[in-house]
Amino acid sequence: MAQCGSYGKNRKRGVLTAGILGTATVLRGRLRGTAEVGAEAMPDRPAAVLRRLTGIETRYWLDAETTVAALACEALRGALDRARLAPEALERVILVTSTGGDTLVPASVNAVIAGLGLDGRADGFDLNNACTGFLSAFDVAARCVATGSGPIGIAVVETLTRFLSPAHPRPYMVFGDAAMAAVVGPAASGGVHATHFGNVGAHRGAVVLGHPGWAGTLTCFEFESSRDELLDLARGALQKSADRVLAAAGLRLDEVEWVVLHQPNGSMLQALIRGLGIDPARVVPVVEAIGSVGAASVAVSLDRLLRERPVAPGDRILMMAVGAGMSYGAVLYEVGR
Amino acid sequence: MAQCGSYGKNRKRGVLTAGILGTATVLRGRLRGTAEVGAEAMPDRPAAVLRRLTGIETRYWLDAETTVAALACEALRGALDRARLAPEALERVILVTSTGGDTLVPASVNAVIAGLGLDGRADGFDLNNACTGFLSAFDVAARCVATGSGPIGIAVVETLTRFLSPAHPRPYMVFGDAAMAAVVGPAASGGVHATHFGNVGAHRGAVVLGHPGWAGTLTCFEFESSRDELLDLARGALQKSADRVLAAAGLRLDEVEWVVLHQPNGSMLQALIRGLGIDPARVVPVVEAIGSVGAASVAVSLDRLLRERPVAPGDRILMMAVGAGMSYGAVLYEVGR
Repeated sequence: MAQCGSYGKNRKRGVLTAGILGTATVLRGRLRGTAEVGAEAMPDRPAAVLRRLTGIETRYWLDAETTVAALACEALRGALDRARLAPEALERVILVTSTGGDTLVPASVNAVIAGLGLDGRADGFDLNNACTGFLSAFDVAARCVATGSGPIGIAVVETLTRFLSPAHPRPYMVFGDAAMAAVVGPAASGGVHATHFGNVGAHRGAVVLGHPGWAGTLTCFEFESSRDELLDLARGALQKSADRVLAAAGLRLDEVEWVVLHQPNGSMLQALIRGLGIDPARVVPVVEAIGSVGAASVAVSLDRLLRERPVAPGDRILMMAVGAGMSYGAVLYEVGR
Repeated sequence: MAQCGSYGKNRKRGVLTAGILGTATVLRGRLRGTAEVGAEAMPDRPAAVLRRLTGIETRYWLDAETTVAALACEALRGALDRARLAPEALERVILVTSTGGDTLVPASVNAVIAGLGLDGRADGFDLNNACTGFLSAFDVAARCVATGSGPIGIAVVETLTRFLSPAHPRPYMVFGDAAMAAVVGPAASGGVHATHFGNVGAHRGAVVLGHPGWAGTLTCFEFESSRDELLDLARGALQKSADRVLAAAGLRLDEVEWVVLHQPNGSMLQALIRGLGIDPARVVPVVEAIGSVGAASVAVSLDRLLRERPVAPGDRILMMAVGAGMSYGAVLYEVGR
């Protein structure tokens, strides 16, 4: 959806006034090195070569018992702590997950709402837009807040390693599991300058996890496009969305203090930083340590940025995601004072 | 999310100004009678008894080839026709489906966007909140429009019969497949007076479709609560949400011209109409002809209401849904002039 600096009557200095009140990351499971994963999926390739090709050293693989809902609750509690809010402050929970959650029916968010003690108080839904899901949910949450809602919790939980097979070594080598949560709520200053999203469904065969109910069998991730093809698609889509939100806000890329970028693997991250002309000092890399974590990639990088870098009130953060679909989008956010 | 008549600065006479510009229903597949379905799942029960117990005469069962995306595209084209809009008018597509869509990754909405020729023009996401999904999507779409978005397409596609087994006769006897679409866009008058949503995750075992990837095997729908238990839960939840939105708008139930109600089966629909004190003449029953169709139940009833009844500008429509989770919600909408 093209949403460039136009938020109806509900803008303040052209900005949708909603703020990120708190964030948290949850990483659980077994930390697996590239040599170990490589021995299972690509035994003929030396670990050093695999580390160089993927730009990934380690990633977390969840155990079989941990639920999406449990990770979402833990991440949301962390984000609420950071925001100095009780769970009861949340009016809505959006659960972002790409692989179907814990149950198809009911929506997996129900167990999150129950887990936080919000039965009868908050509502929610599951949202899936592959790797762009966190930014889609952030756009929706900001619009809810701008139209009168109290704080909204976004939980991003990716459990990608549960759908891997060494018979499909490319996803096996790069995917990891991660969870992140953000609380988005009313803010007196700062907010969302512009958002832009799009899809190119013609490329939806690039990264696929089939539905077992359709396939008639359990399914695993498959990559059907070459790395170079994926990189070209990703760079073009990110450039388009970034150009749109920057133009809407009347800013140049070098005027934006921080850039939060989807990180499909280490070498693609570096290629995207170069290809988009981003100052690497403004990016927080996470993929080397946690692998390719779907919609949680941008989310965890944002959490790290807000915790570890000298982010100041008034700073602008350009968030950009691209993923399977191909879905893509950008959000230009200004930190409140 | 409690959202009672408070939409920040973006209200006009206390109303979130977004209108239903067009709707359409798509029913495909084989029309199956209760006797035929009953012979497979409950061969010991006479068809007349099953018809009385379920209040369902017929329902559609999709063939194995028809995709969620194809049904969504057909329904959206119908709703766009009704709205006298080209597909290019859509800025965003929200695909509501309870059972995971065509693919888990990418989100199934990507094929809908491509199918409508909107690659590079519109974005979208999949949304799941069980039977309450259409109302959740309507709430989100109205807030997007109120914050500057152009028309948004909501497609509800339920393919529930693909997840049935005669070994679980209760869902087998009542479920059917259906699709509906609505175009929500800017409106000069009318709009959303109030919405209220909630969840009670403590009851999430009542209606379940497990995730095959977790279960390690293909899954089917199971009902784990008694009809009376489900009915009590549903009635209480609907009463709560209806009371909230009516109070926010300063209206009594008998002042609302039309009521669109979730229809889990025929006898539960009648019990809900009685239990909530609704004038039956204001309700459009669909369950007898199409069965229990998840999030499409409210959606198809709304489409039929707008097409078949003398709905006039200024009329108020109270929409109420309840479903697995247990999720529930109500929307009070005023038809534009």
